[in-house]
Amino acid sequence: MKTVVVRNITRADSNAVGTLGAVGVATAHEAFGRFGLMKTYMRPIYPGAQIAGPAVTVLAQPGDNWMLHVAVEQCQKGDVLVVGCTADNTDGMFGELLATSLRARGVKGLIIDAGCRDVKALQEMDFPVWSKAISAKGTVKATLGAVNVPVVCAGVNVEPGDVIVADDDGVVVIPKKDAVETAQKAQKRHDDEDGKRKQLESGVLGLDMYKMREPLEKAGLRYVDNPEDV
Amino acid sequence: MKTVVVRNITRADSNAVGTLGAVGVATAHEAFGRFGLMKTYMRPIYPGAQIAGPAVTVLAQPGDNWMLHVAVEQCQKGDVLVVGCTADNTDGMFGELLATSLRARGVKGLIIDAGCRDVKALQEMDFPVWSKAISAKGTVKATLGAVNVPVVCAGVNVEPGDVIVADDDGVVVIPKKDAVETAQKAQKRHDDEDGKRKQLESGVLGLDMYKMREPLEKAGLRYVDNPEDV
Amino acid sequence: MKTVVVRNITRADSNAVGTLGAVGVATAHEAFGRFGLMKTYMRPIYPGAQIAGPAVTVLAQPGDNWMLHVAVEQCQKGDVLVVGCTADNTDGMFGELLATSLRARGVKGLIIDAGCRDVKALQEMDFPVWSKAISAKGTVKATLGAVNVPVVCAGVNVEPGDVIVADDDGVVVIPKKDAVETAQKAQKRHDDEDGKRKQLESGVLGLDMYKMREPLEKAGLRYVDNPEDV
Amino acid sequence: MKTVVVRNITRADSNAVGTLGAVGVATAHEAFGRFGLMKTYMRPIYPGAQIAGPAVTVLAQPGDNWMLHVAVEQCQKGDVLVVGCTADNTDGMFGELLATSLRARGVKGLIIDAGCRDVKALQEMDFPVWSKAISAKGTVKATLGAVNVPVVCAGVNVEPGDVIVADDDGVVVIPKKDAVETAQKAQKRHDDEDGKRKQLESGVLGLDMYKMREPLEKAGLRYVDNPEDV
Amino acid sequence: MKTVVVRNITRADSNAVGTLGAVGVATAHEAFGRFGLMKTYMRPIYPGAQIAGPAVTVLAQPGDNWMLHVAVEQCQKGDVLVVGCTADNTDGMFGELLATSLRARGVKGLIIDAGCRDVKALQEMDFPVWSKAISAKGTVKATLGAVNVPVVCAGVNVEPGDVIVADDDGVVVIPKKDAVETAQKAQKRHDDEDGKRKQLESGVLGLDMYKMREPLEKAGLRYVDNPEDV
Amino acid sequence: MKTVVVRNITRADSNAVGTLGAVGVATAHEAFGRFGLMKTYMRPIYPGAQIAGPAVTVLAQPGDNWMLHVAVEQCQKGDVLVVGCTADNTDGMFGELLATSLRARGVKGLIIDAGCRDVKALQEMDFPVWSKAISAKGTVKATLGAVNVPVVCAGVNVEPGDVIVADDDGVVVIPKKDAVETAQKAQKRHDDEDGKRKQLESGVLGLDMYKMREPLEKAGLRYVDNPEDV
Repeated sequence: MKTVVVRNITRADSNAVGTLGAVGVATAHEAFGRFGLMKTYMRPIYPGAQIAGPAVTVLAQPGDNWMLHVAVEQCQKGDVLVVGCTADNTDGMFGELLATSLRARGVKGLIIDAGCRDVKALQEMDFPVWSKAISAKGTVKATLGAVNVPVVCAGVNVEPGDVIVADDDGVVVIPKKDAVETAQKAQKRHDDEDGKRKQLESGVLGLDMYKMREPLEKAGLRYVDNPEDV
Repeated sequence: MKTVVVRNITRADSNAVGTLGAVGVATAHEAFGRFGLMKTYMRPIYPGAQIAGPAVTVLAQPGDNWMLHVAVEQCQKGDVLVVGCTADNTDGMFGELLATSLRARGVKGLIIDAGCRDVKALQEMDFPVWSKAISAKGTVKATLGAVNVPVVCAGVNVEPGDVIVADDDGVVVIPKKDAVETAQKAQKRHDDEDGKRKQLESGVLGLDMYKMREPLEKAGLRYVDNPEDV
Repeated sequence: MKTVVVRNITRADSNAVGTLGAVGVATAHEAFGRFGLMKTYMRPIYPGAQIAGPAVTVLAQPGDNWMLHVAVEQCQKGDVLVVGCTADNTDGMFGELLATSLRARGVKGLIIDAGCRDVKALQEMDFPVWSKAISAKGTVKATLGAVNVPVVCAGVNVEPGDVIVADDDGVVVIPKKDAVETAQKAQKRHDDEDGKRKQLESGVLGLDMYKMREPLEKAGLRYVDNPEDV
Repeated sequence: MKTVVVRNITRADSNAVGTLGAVGVATAHEAFGRFGLMKTYMRPIYPGAQIAGPAVTVLAQPGDNWMLHVAVEQCQKGDVLVVGCTADNTDGMFGELLATSLRARGVKGLIIDAGCRDVKALQEMDFPVWSKAISAKGTVKATLGAVNVPVVCAGVNVEPGDVIVADDDGVVVIPKKDAVETAQKAQKRHDDEDGKRKQLESGVLGLDMYKMREPLEKAGLRYVDNPEDV
Repeated sequence: MKTVVVRNITRADSNAVGTLGAVGVATAHEAFGRFGLMKTYMRPIYPGAQIAGPAVTVLAQPGDNWMLHVAVEQCQKGDVLVVGCTADNTDGMFGELLATSLRARGVKGLIIDAGCRDVKALQEMDFPVWSKAISAKGTVKATLGAVNVPVVCAGVNVEPGDVIVADDDGVVVIPKKDAVETAQKAQKRHDDEDGKRKQLESGVLGLDMYKMREPLEKAGLRYVDNPEDV
Repeated sequence: MKTVVVRNITRADSNAVGTLGAVGVATAHEAFGRFGLMKTYMRPIYPGAQIAGPAVTVLAQPGDNWMLHVAVEQCQKGDVLVVGCTADNTDGMFGELLATSLRARGVKGLIIDAGCRDVKALQEMDFPVWSKAISAKGTVKATLGAVNVPVVCAGVNVEPGDVIVADDDGVVVIPKKDAVETAQKAQKRHDDEDGKRKQLESGVLGLDMYKMREPLEKAGLRYVDNPEDV
C-alpha cells in the first residue's frame, strides 16, 4: 500500500447527497438494490442524528490516529470522514479535540471502523459518530496510512467522494457514479410510502395492498383452523 | 415443517397478562422459577417500554419477511408478535410500515430474533420492538414459513398464546397454562418488595433482613481485619 | 482461594479520587500511561453518569450474588463496588434492592463483570452501574466467594482501595499507590486541553498545532494531487 | 417448570434413525425442508464422528451437572443425550467419568449447549461430543432441572425421542413423527447425489446439469467480456 | 450493483503466484507491508493445506449459492474461488458437489465469507476451503449476484485476478499489480529467515541478533534485580 | 505502569509443577477449588500437548512484540512464557523464530492473550501454544511493556513464577504459594478417579456411587412414568 494523501477527489453530486440524506439509510439502501450496507456493529454513539455527505477516506493502522489528523486538512464543508483500519481494532481513535477541528471545517460526522471516546462531549457539541465501539483507549501517532484511497470500512469498500448516508438504522455507501440514479429511485420509494402508510393506518392489510394472497397460495401456504389440524 | 397458518389459538388468561405486564420481566421470571428468559442479546430498540400480551408466533426464513405480512391478519388487540428464524439472521425484517399495520390492529409490540429498521420512526410512533440487531438490510418475500406454530425465539420455545412480558430488562415467556399461577406468585413477590425496600432504605442490611449471617458462617466464611491476615 | 472478608482496607487519597472523577476516564487513562482500562464490553446501563471512588471488591461465583450482600456492610460513603466472577457470566446479579442498600451507605455506583437488572428503576433512582450485560436472570445465594481481595474485573486486576473512574467512555482502574501522581498529571492534561480546543475551534489544524508536518514527511508521507498519481 | 424425570418415552423409528445416521447431517437437514439445524457454534470436540439416535433430554441449570447424573439411568443402548441450559453457559459440565457411565449403557454420544472437558480422554475412548465450548470449569450438583422434558438446545426445540443426527457439519433434530418420511426423502437425495457427482467429475457444469442457464437469463443475468463493459 | 458476469479477467503473474504460495501467508503479508490480510475468523476447514492462485470472485446473496454455480464456468486451472456476501451469513453455501465441479476444472481451493458443509468429504478429496463457519444449512438459488467484480471478502477488497495466498495462518490478498514486487520481497524475507533460525537455534538471543539492546535502553527500559525494586 | 524487566523471580516448587502437569488442567483446577481458569477462548493451536511450568510474564502493547524478545533472555529451562496485553488484540505476535529461540532455552510453551502465527511450523517443531487467535498479522517493535510483573492473561492475574498448567481443556494458573498443597490435592483426586472409572465401566450408576438419590429426593425431584404425567 502506498502511504499517500490524495488532495483532489471528485465528490458525488450534491443534490443527490441532499436527497439521500433526507430519505435516510433504509430507503437509500433499498433504492440501491440492497447493496452497500455496512455491518450492523456500526452504531451511532447517540440516537437521533441523520447525515449524508461525500466521503473523505482514511486508512489507519490499529491503535494509531496519526492519519486522522492528516485527513482533517483534506475535508471540506459537508464531507463525512470515513476511517478503515488494517486490522480489527476498538481503540478510541477519535474524540472531542478532533471533532472540534472537523467541526471548524464544516464536516458533518465520522464513520469509524474502530473505537470512539469523549462520547458525552461529542453529544453535547452534536457531532455525530458511527463506530464499532466506545473506548477510552488512547492511541499513538507512529505509523503512516493513507488519505483518500479506497478503504474497506465495516465490510464495504468506500471510494473517496462516495455518498455516505448514516442514521439510527446504520450506514450505507452509495458509489458516486450511482448517486444520482439512486437518489431518484430513493425519492420515488419515499413518496410511495406515504400512500401505503395511510392505507395500512386505515386497517387495509399488507396481504391485500401488496396482493400477496395469490402468490402465497401458489407457494403452498395452507390455512387451518386449529393447532390439531397442522 | 408444515407451511401453515393456524387461525384459532387459545390465548393466556387476560388478567394474568395484565398482572405480569405490571410487575415486569424480572419479577415474572423469578415467579416462574427462573425459567423462560430469552437470551440477553434481545434488547429494546428504545428504552422505557414495558408490555405484556399473548403471543402470535411467526417462523420465518432468514432475510424473508413474507410471513410477517401473513401474521398481521391473525393478530388481535393486545397481542404481541413473536418472530423466530430458521437460521441466525440480523436483517431488518421489520419497519415502520409493518408497525403501522400492527398498530392498526391493536398489537402491543414485536419480539424478533433478527433485525429491525426505521427505529427512529418506531420510537416516534411509540411501537416497542425487542430485537437481536438494528439493521437497514431489506428482506425478500420469497419463501414460506408458518404462523401460530411453536417457535424457538432467542433460546426459548414459544407456543401461540403464551404470555410475553418485555421491558428494559429483556423478554420472558410464561406458558399459558402457567400464567395464572405465575401471575399470583409474581404479584406476591412484587408486594413483598415494598417492605424490603423500605427496610434497606433505612439502613438495615440485607445480611440481617435475609438472616444470612448464620448460613454464611456455616458455609465457612471467615472475617479478617487486614489483607495480611488472609 | 480463601473465602474471606477483609474488614480494613486502605483507600486511595480522597483528593486524588476527586480530581480523577472530575477529569473523567479518557484523561485519567492517558495520565496513567494508557494502562488500567477495563474491556470495552463494560457499558453504563444509562448514559450521563460520571463517578470515581475507592474500590470495595467482590469475587463472586457465576449466577450467585451472595457475596454482594456480604460486601454491602464493608462499604463506606464514596466507595465504588467492583464485582469480578470466577467464570464468564451475564446473569442479573444486581438490581434495585441491592442498589437501595448501597445508596443508604453512600456508595457511588457499581462495576460488575456480569449482568444487571431493574435498569429502569436504577435510572430513576440515579444509581449508576457499568456492566457486561443487562439480564433479568435471577441468581442464587449458595456458594462463597470473597470480599476485599484482589479481583480481575473485565480484564483488569483491582486491589481493594484502588481508584475506579467510570463514565460514558468506560471504566479505568488507577492503583492507589499511583493515584496522587496520576491525578496531578491528569489535571495538567485537562488544563492543557482548553487551549488546544480554542485553537482548533478557530481553524488551526492539528497538523500545525502539534507540529506533525515534519515528522510525517520524514516518515515518508507523500502528497499527490489526483488518484491517478498514487 | 416442573423438576421431574419422565421414565417412559417414545423413541423414533429405529430404521429411520439408521438411515438418517448413514446419510449425515447435511442430507437429513435438506430432506426435512431445511429445518431443525442447531446453531453453528455446536462443534464436535474431535473430527470424524458421525452418529444418530433418539434423544434423551436434560434441562440443566448453568454450571450444575446434577441432572446429567440423573439422566444416565434413563438412557438405553443407541440413545443420544441432549443437554439444554436455562441460561447461557460454557462450563465443563461433562467429562470422562460421565462418558464412561454413558458408554457402559450403550449411549452413542452427547449434544450439550454448554462446555465439555477431558477432551483428550474422550477422543481416546472415542466418545463423541458436540458442544458449545471446551472448558475445564468444574460444576456443582446443587439445583434440580428435568429429564425427558422438551428442551431448547442451541436454538432448536428437542422432544424426548426425537432423532438427533450429528457429524462434522453440525447437529440436526428430526421430530420423531417426521422421522420415517424424512429418512425416505434423505435416502433418495443421497442416492441421487452419486449420479450428479459422476457427471460433475466428468466436467459437466452444474449450469447445464441443473438447467440453470434459462432461469438465470430470465432473472436478468448479463455476461460481458471485459471489466470495462460492466 | 450490476448483476453481471465478466468473462475475461487479467490474472496475476503466474511466477509471482508460485513464489507467494511457496512462502505462505505470514511472509507474503509482511512482504506486502502488512496489508491485505483477511479477518482472523477465516479458518481452514482442515489443517495443513497451503495454496495460492488468482482470484475468480463471486458476490453472493446471503443463503443463496446460485452465483457459485455460475462462477464455476469462469474458472481456469490454478484459480482460487473467492466468495463475498452482501450481508453477514454463515449458511453452508458450498459442499462436496460444487467442490467436485471446481476440482474438475483444476481450481485449487475456495475462500468464502460464509459457511461450508460436507467438510469430511472435502477433506477426503483434499479440496481446501477457508470459511467463516461450518454449517449444514442449505441454500436457495433465487437471487442474482455477480461474478468477477470487486468483492469485499472478510474485510479485504478483492479484484478479479488478484493473488490469494491461504494456509493455516489465514488468507492474504496481494493485488495483481503488486504481485511481482511482493513476490520478490517475500522470497528475500524467506531466504533471510534460514540464517536467523540457525543463529537462534544455537542460542543467540534476538536481543543481540536484531541489535535491540540499545534502542530498548533509549526507550527507557529498566532492569531490576527483584520484584521489590520495581 | 513501570517499563521494567525483573531479573530474579521465585519459581513454584518443581515437584508440584511436575505433579500438576501430570494430572492436567481439569484436575488441577478442581484441586484449587475451581479458581484460576483462563477464559475458554484460549485454545491450543494443535491438539495433544500437555505442559506445566513456572510463568515468566510479559505485559505487551497490542500489535507490538518487542517485549517478547526481551523476555526470552529471562527464561530458564522448564519455564512457560505468559503474555498479557494492555488492550484486546489478535495480531500474530509470536511465530517460528521466537519459538526457536525459546526452544533453545528449554521453554516448554507459550500462553498468549493475542494471536499466533506459523502454526504449521510450530506443530512440526512441537512447540505448543495456547492463544486467543491464529493470525498472520505482523507486529511492530516500538513501545515498551514489562517483563516479570503481574499480568492479567485471559481473565486471570498471573504472578511471575506461578504454575501454568495447559492441555486440550485450557489453561489454569496456580499461585506459587498454593502450588504444593494444590498438587497434593490434585494427586489425590487423580488417584481416586481410577476407582470411580472402574465402577462406572462396570455399570454402577453415578446416582448410586455418589449417593445422590436421597439428596435429589429431598430437593424435590419427582419421577413420573409418562410425559402426560408431568
